[in-house]
Amino acid sequence: MVFESAEIGNRVDKEAYNLQAPDVRVALLHLQGDLKEAGLPVLVIIGGVEGAGKGETVNLLLEWLDARGVRTYAFGEPSDEERERPRFWRYWRALPGKGRIGIFFGAWHTQPIVDRVFKRLGRARFDQELDRIADLERMLTADGVLILKFWMHLSKKAQRARLKELEKDPKLSWKVTKREWKFFELYDDFREVSEHALRRTSAPEAPWHVIEASDARYRNLTVTTIIREAIQSRLDELKEKPAPAREKPPLPAPRPINILNSLDLTRALPDEDYEKALLKYQSRLNRLHRELPKKGRSLALLFEGPDAAGKGGTIRRVIQAMDARAYQVISVAAPTEEERQQPYLWRFWRHLPRQGHVTLYDRSWYGRVLVERLEGFCPPADWNRAYTEINAFEEQQADFGTILVKFWLHVSPEEQLRRFQEREHIAYKQYKITEEDWRNREKWNGYEAAACDMIERTSTDVSPWVLIEANDKNWARVRVLKTVCHRLEEALG
Amino acid sequence: MVFESAEIGNRVDKEAYNLQAPDVRVALLHLQGDLKEAGLPVLVIIGGVEGAGKGETVNLLLEWLDARGVRTYAFGEPSDEERERPRFWRYWRALPGKGRIGIFFGAWHTQPIVDRVFKRLGRARFDQELDRIADLERMLTADGVLILKFWMHLSKKAQRARLKELEKDPKLSWKVTKREWKFFELYDDFREVSEHALRRTSAPEAPWHVIEASDARYRNLTVTTIIREAIQSRLDELKEKPAPAREKPPLPAPRPINILNSLDLTRALPDEDYEKALLKYQSRLNRLHRELPKKGRSLALLFEGPDAAGKGGTIRRVIQAMDARAYQVISVAAPTEEERQQPYLWRFWRHLPRQGHVTLYDRSWYGRVLVERLEGFCPPADWNRAYTEINAFEEQQADFGTILVKFWLHVSPEEQLRRFQEREHIAYKQYKITEEDWRNREKWNGYEAAACDMIERTSTDVSPWVLIEANDKNWARVRVLKTVCHRLEEALG
Repeated sequence: MVFESAEIGNRVDKEAYNLQAPDVRVALLHLQGDLKEAGLPVLVIIGGVEGAGKGETVNLLLEWLDARGVRTYAFGEPSDEERERPRFWRYWRALPGKGRIGIFFGAWHTQPIVDRVFKRLGRARFDQELDRIADLERMLTADGVLILKFWMHLSKKAQRARLKELEKDPKLSWKVTKREWKFFELYDDFREVSEHALRRTSAPEAPWHVIEASDARYRNLTVTTIIREAIQSRLDELKEKPAPAREKPPLPAPRPINILNSLDLTRALPDEDYEKALLKYQSRLNRLHRELPKKGRSLALLFEGPDAAGKGGTIRRVIQAMDARAYQVISVAAPTEEERQQPYLWRFWRHLPRQGHVTLYDRSWYGRVLVERLEGFCPPADWNRAYTEINAFEEQQADFGTILVKFWLHVSPEEQLRRFQEREHIAYKQYKITEEDWRNREKWNGYEAAACDMIERTSTDVSPWVLIEANDKNWARVRVLKTVCHRLEEALG
Repeated sequence: MVFESAEIGNRVDKEAYNLQAPDVRVALLHLQGDLKEAGLPVLVIIGGVEGAGKGETVNLLLEWLDARGVRTYAFGEPSDEERERPRFWRYWRALPGKGRIGIFFGAWHTQPIVDRVFKRLGRARFDQELDRIADLERMLTADGVLILKFWMHLSKKAQRARLKELEKDPKLSWKVTKREWKFFELYDDFREVSEHALRRTSAPEAPWHVIEASDARYRNLTVTTIIREAIQSRLDELKEKPAPAREKPPLPAPRPINILNSLDLTRALPDEDYEKALLKYQSRLNRLHRELPKKGRSLALLFEGPDAAGKGGTIRRVIQAMDARAYQVISVAAPTEEERQQPYLWRFWRHLPRQGHVTLYDRSWYGRVLVERLEGFCPPADWNRAYTEINAFEEQQADFGTILVKFWLHVSPEEQLRRFQEREHIAYKQYKITEEDWRNREKWNGYEAAACDMIERTSTDVSPWVLIEANDKNWARVRVLKTVCHRLEEALG
């Protein structure tokens, strides 16, 4: 179904090509200037069968476009840095920023298709991979990326003819190796698997364009024309919809009785018990964290909670137990300029640590559904979809062997006030308290409600939230250490 | 000589420590705020013998400082991405930006010392590595980085005692493996080699601080106090010297007869000869560029020259001959915010391609001694030292197996004018011409003089400049292709 319409012998003769091509070329150049101005990121994905001229089309695009705004990525064998992170990491790091064009020569669909044809991937797992791709593309589209996917198709007959033709040309014969003929032998399998993949990953916002590739002029003209039209129409859309005026959003309605204010915050641990427990769990954690690299696992500890809930102090008690070479603390602050040019999760993918490491996040990607929601830094549609996107992000980490433990450290508003006042009086704590902290206090109820929404929607099987009563620091620290030890013991067996 | 003064039994008793430590801690926190504001990058390097408590000191620093402004890097085995680039790449990617503190747990000196002790490195080569380190640190210092280097020292007796003590402690015995004892056996060799390394890489602007490490309190207090004082005094210096008012610098004096305006720009190639030569050299280049990965070599082609000299068109003729998976074009534009936070060469190190690839630079690191010099984007001291720094940078690439060919495409001012006017009339060329290009024309003579300085000072044995007469595009393109083919044939044997 998918491919039949690309086997009808489409051709463009030289005359027609020479008539139309210059127009498309000029238009593309102008559009490139416009999209730069509009801050539109464009991702062009080139897939398809061997010998279909994918490379020639990429070369043509590089020739026609202003090279300063384009970058091509060919995804071959992953490097070990790439292998030591979840599969999508290599694609995230290559995404085009705002106003730029990225050309992916092969992309996230390539490996699953090959693996499926060679039976290294079962059907269910294959479909799961395809759904992840669809999810990712949906997220990118929602974040404003224009995705254009091309599948260069050749009929079996055309592919054989093309490979023979390449083999005969002394300038091009290097393109045909045993691998290409091996793939050709599996033509029917590839066709079936690709057809399934294309269908499952075609979406209204990012459809596959199947291009009959046997005639180079037809192929090039069709691809460039589709790119031209798609960019033009997206730019028109952007012009029609002016950015919504950013208003302070209403705070979420307070929830009088909720999972957080129902915590028993009187829980406490006397100092002498604390010292004993600290030593016990730190020793245990020390032993456990050294098992991680041996077992090829990673540990990610994520800390959220109101200001002055004791995140920093808790993190310090955890890292005291560990080898300084084994962990890193990532404090999440405002995004940089480069990060603002990219989809929201880019900056977290970017710093995703390599396998075998421990990462402690002092605040995290949950900023999207907490501070960004409350302060109106992003429109409601964006933080609303973030729950699903975050769940998918964490699932990929878990699938990859990361043990993710998410802590919510909770204090009462009274205790927070006491700590704020204390911070103002202790010299080495003063840096921690700012005007903003006082302002945030006023939004306590809204913040609590947003946190409850977050906990409800992102406590998943693979990474549930652990709520910690933190009015007493001793109690909180020991509870965190104990939980980490338990999770590690469970996971490392 | 270096180590004796760190074997005298320095100790700090608990009482004295408890009296002084809180002061240092508060001061460090305040200074961290100040250095953030002043945009001062601080690099703390922790080296020294096994068992000297390097990890504990790093943990203490992380505990005392505001984690949001610090990042620690432990450099273990390089990843393959790191191995596929010159040795310093991994350190460049970890450098702290302005206003931040980077802690390097082991750094550029570690591997050469170990390699020298195990005789994997000859004396001459070892000294060359040490000189490179000194060069790098000098450059970083000149770019405003405060470098603080600590060497944790233990006498042979103290190290043996320390390792035994660690072995006995069930919480810490994991730190002592066969490797540590193996290193201990080589104590005298390590001592001799380290002493030499420390002496050769100590400079007034970045001296080594040798710390007697057997007493933890003395070690921690000394290190933190040195850091405190160094940051304080650097901040005082910065306050005293207000940034010099940025004035338009005088243009370099024109050179009436020079190597560029003496080029014979009448050289030309008729179209039919051009077509033949183009085909010939593109075919040859195609064959040659496929040898690169097999031989573990890379190719870097760098293009500079006046506006409208035909850099883009030439680059396109080169890439037409290559597999789109094998090359990338890097167009050098204004630095991003993250790049502006770093030393000048950071953004070029950052994008240094992996081994086996072809990179084409449309403009390059030479911007420092061309446009930045002419426009006064950096003070004279900065572009003056850039010649040496660039030579060192290119030498490292060459050492690593990169074949670097630097082209200067030259046109006459008359020809440039003709092309500017043409660009204004051809639709798909209009994007290439801006107001700025017209303004730059007025500085022709100064630009030419700066280019001559550059060619004189950066034409080295490993990477000489190739001057191309480019008034005739046919001639220029064929000359470039031919040169690339020759250089590849020569290098690949």
